[in-house]
Amino acid sequence: MDGFNFSTEVAVRFAETDAQGIAHHASFVVSLEVARVAYLAEHAGGYLSIQAGGIEALTTEVQLAYRRAAYFDERLLVWTRCVDLRGARFRYEYVVARAGEVVADGSTSHATVDAVTRRPTRVPAWFVDAVARAEALPAL
Amino acid sequence: MDGFNFSTEVAVRFAETDAQGIAHHASFVVSLEVARVAYLAEHAGGYLSIQAGGIEALTTEVQLAYRRAAYFDERLLVWTRCVDLRGARFRYEYVVARAGEVVADGSTSHATVDAVTRRPTRVPAWFVDAVARAEALPAL
Amino acid sequence: MDGFNFSTEVAVRFAETDAQGIAHHASFVVSLEVARVAYLAEHAGGYLSIQAGGIEALTTEVQLAYRRAAYFDERLLVWTRCVDLRGARFRYEYVVARAGEVVADGSTSHATVDAVTRRPTRVPAWFVDAVARAEALPAL
Amino acid sequence: MDGFNFSTEVAVRFAETDAQGIAHHASFVVSLEVARVAYLAEHAGGYLSIQAGGIEALTTEVQLAYRRAAYFDERLLVWTRCVDLRGARFRYEYVVARAGEVVADGSTSHATVDAVTRRPTRVPAWFVDAVARAEALPAL
Repeated sequence: MDGFNFSTEVAVRFAETDAQGIAHHASFVVSLEVARVAYLAEHAGGYLSIQAGGIEALTTEVQLAYRRAAYFDERLLVWTRCVDLRGARFRYEYVVARAGEVVADGSTSHATVDAVTRRPTRVPAWFVDAVARAEALPAL
Repeated sequence: MDGFNFSTEVAVRFAETDAQGIAHHASFVVSLEVARVAYLAEHAGGYLSIQAGGIEALTTEVQLAYRRAAYFDERLLVWTRCVDLRGARFRYEYVVARAGEVVADGSTSHATVDAVTRRPTRVPAWFVDAVARAEALPAL
Repeated sequence: MDGFNFSTEVAVRFAETDAQGIAHHASFVVSLEVARVAYLAEHAGGYLSIQAGGIEALTTEVQLAYRRAAYFDERLLVWTRCVDLRGARFRYEYVVARAGEVVADGSTSHATVDAVTRRPTRVPAWFVDAVARAEALPAL
Repeated sequence: MDGFNFSTEVAVRFAETDAQGIAHHASFVVSLEVARVAYLAEHAGGYLSIQAGGIEALTTEVQLAYRRAAYFDERLLVWTRCVDLRGARFRYEYVVARAGEVVADGSTSHATVDAVTRRPTRVPAWFVDAVARAEALPAL
């Protein structure tokens, strides 16, 4: 997937299907989160590293376009990249693919806040560096 | 419903259906929780009253038998009663019904713990009293 | 809420909260669906009326901006309007509010398809008419 | 895990946590389903093989006891065995474990029905055989 260095696989769970016989659209929002967690585990010590610094990342926006239906037990690759880190904000972009075909694409925006006060706090420098390294990797 | 004084209505959400065209069995576990929250709101000041005392109620057991399928947008009554309060434990029993017909029945068990230490702590006396009053009500 | 004629109430379920202590962002996607279903029930005979015509409405896009956190057991009003009906497509816009304060806003796009062939099929005329009437209502 | 030949790993998703900071009890019901699907993929050609024979397996009972809390991003092993196949019914038993420690255990019961008529239909002989072979394997 052009421009993406990272992907993680999710399988459509039966509980995620709906009476239209397809993966329910809300389940993709959770799949994007699974992909972010996998991205952080691969590149930045996991979400627990962020929390260890007394920081939580809140989700401030979700945008998803559904291109094709996905079905029970299908393996989907969630291509994921972290972009636009600035101050207390960053964004992820995603392409959800099945056998090279786009099933959905979208983005999520996030804000880092102090875990206790919930006030905005800058993205830690180590996280900015880790993402810079991850995104500079040659494409898979 | 014999022996029950309280019920709350839930509608089957589309997101709760699955590719068998029915309400997914895990969604009933959430419906029981919705019913407990409604029961507490009616009889004991709401779950927030329990939390206000520095207590959390953990779920320690779930048991459900599915008698009939439920379908999208159906209105189900969740008949609910609180039983067996003793020490730091209590139980709920449920019948999920549609038009007088049993769709599912089951029970959940709970333990009260200190919100901070997570150590078992007795169910507050006011809660025991509130449940005693609720369950002594004449049947609807 | 300016420009909206319809709202429905949802309560934040405990199962919808997450370890940040707030309603998980994916749960709002389900709340929008609950609101669409309520809108259809109020104005167009319910989603079952659409299905009765051999039609399914697929979700093709979701967009949500989260403005404030929502917490367990809070009552949220989901203001909902149906816009841009044309051919086999339509869109909903939403404002999720708590006590007059915006918690989230967003939109979803939908395509009507033949339930069997899954090919695009025009939104039925009666549905277009029902939405026109609903949206022409004086604001609440 | 004594008496179990099969396990599959699930990670606690952030969306599965709740405001008590732990994996919500309903999420385990989905994890058991994920484990059944993995068991079938390993031993019986996957759930799609059952469906290919015009059969659906309905869930008729769920029972779970929660022994310890599970937390975000923890890896849990779901030990799974299929037991008591007879006629149109079978059962699964489970132990959910973390680092050799029991987090939860339980069982689910199922009935095989004709996918169209939803009438009970015997578990196919090939499935009975596949389970017999799977359960006769020496322990891992």
